[in-house]
Amino acid sequence: MDNLNVYNTLKSKKENFTPIVKNKVGMYVCGPTVYSEVHLGNCRTFISFDLIYRYLAHLGYKVRYVRNITDVGHIENDDDLGEDKINKKARLEKIEPMEIVQRFTVDFHDTMKQFNTLSPTIEPTATGHIIEQIELIKKIIKAGIGYEINGSVYFDVHKFNKTSNYGKLSKRKLEHLINNTRSLDGQNDKNNPEDFALWKKAEPEHIMRWPSPWGDGFPGWHLECTAMSSKYLGDRFDIHGGGLDLKFPHHECEIAQAECINSKSPVNFWIHTNMMTLNGKKMSKSTDNNILPKDLFSGKNDKFKNAFSPSVIKFYFFQAHYRSILDLTESALLSSEKGYNKLMESIQDIYDIKIDGESTFNINQWIQECYGAMNDDFNSPILIAKLFEVVKLINSIKDGKEGVSKKQKDLLTKYLNIFVFEILGLTKPDKTENKDSMLENILEILLKIRNKARKDKDFETADLIRNELNSIGINLEDKKDKSNFNIN
Amino acid sequence: MDNLNVYNTLKSKKENFTPIVKNKVGMYVCGPTVYSEVHLGNCRTFISFDLIYRYLAHLGYKVRYVRNITDVGHIENDDDLGEDKINKKARLEKIEPMEIVQRFTVDFHDTMKQFNTLSPTIEPTATGHIIEQIELIKKIIKAGIGYEINGSVYFDVHKFNKTSNYGKLSKRKLEHLINNTRSLDGQNDKNNPEDFALWKKAEPEHIMRWPSPWGDGFPGWHLECTAMSSKYLGDRFDIHGGGLDLKFPHHECEIAQAECINSKSPVNFWIHTNMMTLNGKKMSKSTDNNILPKDLFSGKNDKFKNAFSPSVIKFYFFQAHYRSILDLTESALLSSEKGYNKLMESIQDIYDIKIDGESTFNINQWIQECYGAMNDDFNSPILIAKLFEVVKLINSIKDGKEGVSKKQKDLLTKYLNIFVFEILGLTKPDKTENKDSMLENILEILLKIRNKARKDKDFETADLIRNELNSIGINLEDKKDKSNFNIN
Repeated sequence: MDNLNVYNTLKSKKENFTPIVKNKVGMYVCGPTVYSEVHLGNCRTFISFDLIYRYLAHLGYKVRYVRNITDVGHIENDDDLGEDKINKKARLEKIEPMEIVQRFTVDFHDTMKQFNTLSPTIEPTATGHIIEQIELIKKIIKAGIGYEINGSVYFDVHKFNKTSNYGKLSKRKLEHLINNTRSLDGQNDKNNPEDFALWKKAEPEHIMRWPSPWGDGFPGWHLECTAMSSKYLGDRFDIHGGGLDLKFPHHECEIAQAECINSKSPVNFWIHTNMMTLNGKKMSKSTDNNILPKDLFSGKNDKFKNAFSPSVIKFYFFQAHYRSILDLTESALLSSEKGYNKLMESIQDIYDIKIDGESTFNINQWIQECYGAMNDDFNSPILIAKLFEVVKLINSIKDGKEGVSKKQKDLLTKYLNIFVFEILGLTKPDKTENKDSMLENILEILLKIRNKARKDKDFETADLIRNELNSIGINLEDKKDKSNFNIN
Repeated sequence: MDNLNVYNTLKSKKENFTPIVKNKVGMYVCGPTVYSEVHLGNCRTFISFDLIYRYLAHLGYKVRYVRNITDVGHIENDDDLGEDKINKKARLEKIEPMEIVQRFTVDFHDTMKQFNTLSPTIEPTATGHIIEQIELIKKIIKAGIGYEINGSVYFDVHKFNKTSNYGKLSKRKLEHLINNTRSLDGQNDKNNPEDFALWKKAEPEHIMRWPSPWGDGFPGWHLECTAMSSKYLGDRFDIHGGGLDLKFPHHECEIAQAECINSKSPVNFWIHTNMMTLNGKKMSKSTDNNILPKDLFSGKNDKFKNAFSPSVIKFYFFQAHYRSILDLTESALLSSEKGYNKLMESIQDIYDIKIDGESTFNINQWIQECYGAMNDDFNSPILIAKLFEVVKLINSIKDGKEGVSKKQKDLLTKYLNIFVFEILGLTKPDKTENKDSMLENILEILLKIRNKARKDKDFETADLIRNELNSIGINLEDKKDKSNFNIN
């Protein structure tokens, strides 16, 4: 437990991890905004924090892991001038915003389950904490930093910056921000363009709205995480995580809000996961350089020829460190799939290898090195490299080039299972999936034989195949050159 | 659509169902209190409403189906003297109440998924609607029916009853209730024992609390459903459902609250599902006459010897009408399992039956009778009896005792699928099993073709099959007369 080092974005360096309360860890991770299907970059973030959660729990910490659902307040373009993302989607589809929220919350949970991630211990929603957010706004106004204009309340960044440091997380200076913040005339009633909304007045057409001391409105996006993290983890907690794109302005604003309310920094360790690219370019819906998890699983997409299982994708994610940019390409995924299959085969093989002699491989040292990798800022690629040392070893034992004692076999089995299933949270290959592809492969062989028979004018064999397939519920459809099948 | 008749508890009779807004249905169902694993009786309720939801959607209605999560306010013993169920569980386990909520919400969703029920379109939480509840309390106080005492607010049932009728749903008279309501001296500060809490003052040790005009506290249980149903479905909506045990006091209080706020009855159709017994006795945790869904699925329980799949249990539920008491016994489940398997076999068989002649069975009349069963207050046992007429028919066709035309086969196939999978929401037996047997069947066909080729001395084809199979990991072992295969 004592040797865990974690990269702290706030300090721009690795620090020894010591929790505030002995043996307990409070961790908050910014969850999805549920207005569309969760995108792959977000999945990588949540899978990375699942690894961190699993490892902390494995080390014996009692972890309270809070990951929120943003179901209101997230404004387009992440500024205060756009429209609430969920409200907009509901308006366009002419349905109740909470129907959007429900649809994509269910989708998100399903996807996370496919990736075999654990549920957080608390999963609070922004709309479930309006009162808490209103109470915080009152405090920020009382502290002289929040100000009301026309039914909206803003956070005065300039005033805050006089006694504190706005930009400490993202290493930005307010004076530089001033030149870079766009200001659209007439669309904004803030004192300064850099200020951010704590409460937004709801225009008459805005569906999501709650009464407040400043009239009907809805909370600003940054506030929800301060409200929920402090409610469930206290004014100061151990870890706050999220994607790198949230560092500014979202997390910077969270720090400002919390410091203003409690006069202290809210978080010990800020952890940020890096972005993903697709075929070397930024993933983006607008340029169509984008792929949804389900389309990657099914193989039905115009980016890749092959389908990839959630386990393989997860394994691929872990082959890069969470702080590295990860580029998704088909060739890289294919080679990951091979590696994943090799690893899984070895895990099967280890039960069958015969005890004979003793291996020269230092298993205890290997175990220490595996922990060493994880203790070095959750370095999963190094851990995976270590796992492949054992894959090689198991193959040598199988080939009779190396011996293995019972004690060694038991140790290897135990720690392979711990690192692969408990900590990395990988799963064994899906049997149904394998069966599916095998089924198709065999059908293709049958079709090949039948096409050959038709070509050779051996209609007896061709008809035999058709009738036999028919009898087990598979229909053949003969086209001029080839035949297709469909399974009932 | 026009012929649907629904039993309305409020009127104690079946009524023709006409929605308030053409082609749209608003339905609210009281969801689980998430302080423990969902019990089987609750599952039956939610599965019954899933059937109703599926059938309404099948008829072409656009259904907004709201099912809430009760995560605060549900007091033990359903009176105002006990402790909040979630708060108590959290206190006993010394964790944050929302950790309890999360654990059992995830468990509930998992169980509902195992039963193949659809997600509701909105799934609001009580804690997510504290503001809405506070606003309703203000209105009830303004109407002169709510009164505050010592930081709690109560609903004056006697005053309400002067101008309305408290007891109209449960057919109780207030004067009878007075004699039967227990009153513990000193524990209660209500004007009358029959009054119920709208807002409860939070004692210092109470973990779940929100600020309100009456001080820190938490909402009464009955209020949440009025707040959430009116927010998402309006002041008057089509269907309100729940278990029969909720009729009084919960639903009675909902009516009183809504009438007081809007001067009109909130719901057109009240639908209540009946209770379940286990081996002839009331299911109850305290007497240990109780079984959890997961223990029924796994077979690991001290009540039954066999394990039963969610599909079989669901099929068993549907063999009784939702308004009948249902007794769970092992022998009844075993015979249901047989029936379910027979039905599923027929659904497989129908693809294989040969078109030959025409059946004397009147399929159009049968379809009408199936709809007739569902239109008669969602009478699933009658529908299932109708399905077994077709099981019998398919067996007769298989045995050559009855003919079938292509049109007849297509109609049967179509409507069997609609009623079994789309409306009842049953699932086929475990797919892996099906895939396994299909894989073997196709391999047997390939072997048959290859044996034929060998016999005909067409070694080219025989070798082609061997090599192709080899390339996908299947080895052939040639014996004198026949060949075996083994899959790597």
